[in-house]
Amino acid sequence: MVRIFITGGTFDKEYNLLNGELYFKETHMDELLSKGRNQVPVEITTLMLKDSLDMTQLDRELIARWCDECEEDKIVVTHGTDTMTETARVLAGKVKNKTIVLTGAMIPIKFGSSDGLFNIGSAMAFAQALPNGVYIAMNGKYFDYDKVRKNRTTGIFEAV
Amino acid sequence: MVRIFITGGTFDKEYNLLNGELYFKETHMDELLSKGRNQVPVEITTLMLKDSLDMTQLDRELIARWCDECEEDKIVVTHGTDTMTETARVLAGKVKNKTIVLTGAMIPIKFGSSDGLFNIGSAMAFAQALPNGVYIAMNGKYFDYDKVRKNRTTGIFEAV
Amino acid sequence: MVRIFITGGTFDKEYNLLNGELYFKETHMDELLSKGRNQVPVEITTLMLKDSLDMTQLDRELIARWCDECEEDKIVVTHGTDTMTETARVLAGKVKNKTIVLTGAMIPIKFGSSDGLFNIGSAMAFAQALPNGVYIAMNGKYFDYDKVRKNRTTGIFEAV
Amino acid sequence: MVRIFITGGTFDKEYNLLNGELYFKETHMDELLSKGRNQVPVEITTLMLKDSLDMTQLDRELIARWCDECEEDKIVVTHGTDTMTETARVLAGKVKNKTIVLTGAMIPIKFGSSDGLFNIGSAMAFAQALPNGVYIAMNGKYFDYDKVRKNRTTGIFEAV
Repeated sequence: MVRIFITGGTFDKEYNLLNGELYFKETHMDELLSKGRNQVPVEITTLMLKDSLDMTQLDRELIARWCDECEEDKIVVTHGTDTMTETARVLAGKVKNKTIVLTGAMIPIKFGSSDGLFNIGSAMAFAQALPNGVYIAMNGKYFDYDKVRKNRTTGIFEAV
Repeated sequence: MVRIFITGGTFDKEYNLLNGELYFKETHMDELLSKGRNQVPVEITTLMLKDSLDMTQLDRELIARWCDECEEDKIVVTHGTDTMTETARVLAGKVKNKTIVLTGAMIPIKFGSSDGLFNIGSAMAFAQALPNGVYIAMNGKYFDYDKVRKNRTTGIFEAV
Repeated sequence: MVRIFITGGTFDKEYNLLNGELYFKETHMDELLSKGRNQVPVEITTLMLKDSLDMTQLDRELIARWCDECEEDKIVVTHGTDTMTETARVLAGKVKNKTIVLTGAMIPIKFGSSDGLFNIGSAMAFAQALPNGVYIAMNGKYFDYDKVRKNRTTGIFEAV
Repeated sequence: MVRIFITGGTFDKEYNLLNGELYFKETHMDELLSKGRNQVPVEITTLMLKDSLDMTQLDRELIARWCDECEEDKIVVTHGTDTMTETARVLAGKVKNKTIVLTGAMIPIKFGSSDGLFNIGSAMAFAQALPNGVYIAMNGKYFDYDKVRKNRTTGIFEAV
């Protein structure tokens, strides 16, 4: 069983065709996993739907508490990419003995994004196969939570 | 660096719009990894493009030899699902000290299949994160090569 | 109000992921028109789901009878491309004072085909805008029923 | 031969994955017509790439001049939906003896929009089949330029 916590980010953004703006309505994780023909038992919980730039310390503590208190020890967290490493650091400080993988997307999955589906495929796999710890999984790669940063010019996560 | 060997299967089938039949022309792995915004360095080699029901013992030995002799020790093999476990058994007998992950698709990726992209995302991750051994990665799960079979009624791989 | 008669053809074929064959289950016209955000009132009737090579004279007379007896005088008929011109000829002989547009697709719409959606967009428009008569609408063009043939080498309809 | 003039609108908007905003880079008409397997000879000219709310009287006169002076008498104009009727009125005042069809999309075609493809299919058909005049083609319907408005609550064009 893999626990999936939804927190928002580009991953779940939708296009409002009346005003041309992006907004959150609900997560599309379930639909995405069906398309991928996923057979791993999952429990999906939407904790919030936020741009990661709007995330507060309180939000991060809430995510940490859910990760800590849930029964599962294999966890995937969807998250905006801009502050993904900050949340990863909070989780690493507060949650032990679990494998937590943060992932996201550069293009909303509702836009037919392929990076969301590719990333969730790899995040689910890393959550099952990596030893306990907190990781970021993007672009097919995984990084220890404290050895990665997002390059804002290219939009790509890279090792530091 | 992950080495990817292409052998065929539903994954790379195309639709011939003149006669309505499915056929092989070339692999679409490169295009698929670009869509997923993959950043893992890969080397892709097409060994054959075959229905897995047409695969011979000689074909399987060829795949094993390439897996054994290539420099990389993290390997993904795309393969038709019908005889994937047979090839996995040959690989396990002949290749040691490497992580080999066989994967495929139930729907051709050219049909906009999402299971191909989800599977390749998870196979790339399993190849990086699992210890040496031969595995089958389908539907988000992974299986040891000798503890899995394809259920022909549902089309789903399951543990035995 | 446009009346849409479904008769089969590549348009509505689906992929059977258990045996890799194409088959008919049901029409996807409703879903397709929703994706296109269609607002033209339509009534959709599935008369049959057949390869056009399997269509008999009796089938063609059935289609003609429905076209003739329905209340609407703007009609779209989806049809396999191989014998589309034969059915068009039967319709032209038996139905007067209506605009009937036959259309189809070279790629099943369930494969993410774009030609099905493009063709149905144009067929709906031709049905509303052309004078009474029987027409074939493919690849953005329209042809009088008796001045067109399918080029079997290229798969494209051309004027004769 | 159908002449296609590109002026912008949601149709050709793209998603900037670095800042999450929508912007114009180039038209995707060529790609869209290829997907639809279009065989109608076309000449595509990009006059501007603008939100229709930013369009000026000078812009509209430019579009009118191109429509008037080009050789073709079947013309499709892609345009933002918000002021599509205003441009249509300018065109109707200045261009005679041609069939001009304005169309657009509620969802960018780069987001896998189906309404863009459906609309261009119908606009191309209306341009070929309707008598001289200026029309708006949206959602499968066509309207005389002076008998339509966009309902801002629903985003749908309706007869007035």
